[in-house]
Amino acid sequence: MDKGISKAVIRRMPRYYRYLGELLENGVERISSNELSKMMKVTASQIRQDLNNFGGFGQQGYGYNVRFLYDEIGRILGLTEIHNVALFGVGNLGQAIANYVRFEKLPFKMIGLFDVDKKKKGQIVSGIPIMMIDEFEDFNKTHRVDIAVLTLPKDAAMPVAQKLADLGVHAFWNFAHVDLEMPKDVVVENVHLSESLMQLSYNMTGR
Amino acid sequence: MDKGISKAVIRRMPRYYRYLGELLENGVERISSNELSKMMKVTASQIRQDLNNFGGFGQQGYGYNVRFLYDEIGRILGLTEIHNVALFGVGNLGQAIANYVRFEKLPFKMIGLFDVDKKKKGQIVSGIPIMMIDEFEDFNKTHRVDIAVLTLPKDAAMPVAQKLADLGVHAFWNFAHVDLEMPKDVVVENVHLSESLMQLSYNMTGR
Repeated sequence: MDKGISKAVIRRMPRYYRYLGELLENGVERISSNELSKMMKVTASQIRQDLNNFGGFGQQGYGYNVRFLYDEIGRILGLTEIHNVALFGVGNLGQAIANYVRFEKLPFKMIGLFDVDKKKKGQIVSGIPIMMIDEFEDFNKTHRVDIAVLTLPKDAAMPVAQKLADLGVHAFWNFAHVDLEMPKDVVVENVHLSESLMQLSYNMTGR
Repeated sequence: MDKGISKAVIRRMPRYYRYLGELLENGVERISSNELSKMMKVTASQIRQDLNNFGGFGQQGYGYNVRFLYDEIGRILGLTEIHNVALFGVGNLGQAIANYVRFEKLPFKMIGLFDVDKKKKGQIVSGIPIMMIDEFEDFNKTHRVDIAVLTLPKDAAMPVAQKLADLGVHAFWNFAHVDLEMPKDVVVENVHLSESLMQLSYNMTGR
């Protein structure tokens, strides 16, 4: 996993990607680190340091080629290929995430929605009929699932994740409020909403 | 805002809070840093260092009093008082977040839902009738809003946030894919779902 680039730098990459995408949309072809610095409210030296990690994208007196840098960061972030996504737990949050993934302009494709509630079977959400979780094993034989989204209750998340990992799913976007214990070759990205709320609450007390 | 505790420590606090809450639910009254270390997959020395920031909660040979530590961390995180929350943008994600806040056992209370779509006016979501955003100014005169949740499209988020800040809202939980530029006394906590997905995608490429 370690490609010699610090985690902190990697964490900042999506934000560069977003700003560069907006520049592209506005027809901007090149930008200096100073201009980017003003837009992003990050020092120009931080920008130069961050982007130097990926080789010489900037040229003295010219600045950065926006398209090149955007594509390069997209490549580094693994955004040059489509990732098939299946979602487990089609409650309110699951439905919202299914729609979210559908409408973002990122290369993630929702290909299956799974739940345990028989009443939901066949209901269409974001253009996809809901299937039962016990149908996933068969589904998985004919579909390549790159990422599983877990929008399940806490207690259901670990057993479902374990089953999916056994069936060969190696990446999880986990919204369940639990730390998944998974084999080393499995990648987990957590979105713990309550922790984010607590962070906000903490920051409010200091005012 | 700086209380002399590092941001990294503060970021880890909600996770301690979650584990201690689970211990309490299971009737555990005290725990050693070694036991907590095994549960949380963090070194015992990290735990001792983290918790030392908040004063002597642990006692040699006794370990930590779970209830005391839980309450103390809750106090530090600002979870001892109820925070009133209003949400702006009642689409799929907004509805999911409204339900989420309602059912979490945290002291955040959803008191208002606002949208610009006239067709939504009066519809009930999570027990609350949707109001129009231009009704907020009046609503705000009779209700104390501590936190605004922004589940709005990118282009709408900044103007709405500006208006709310002018009306005295000083904390934002922002799901819009944009960096809010706010006065220094305003607290913003971002949940950028697409950045989280990109992080996952990056980590997948290293496998």
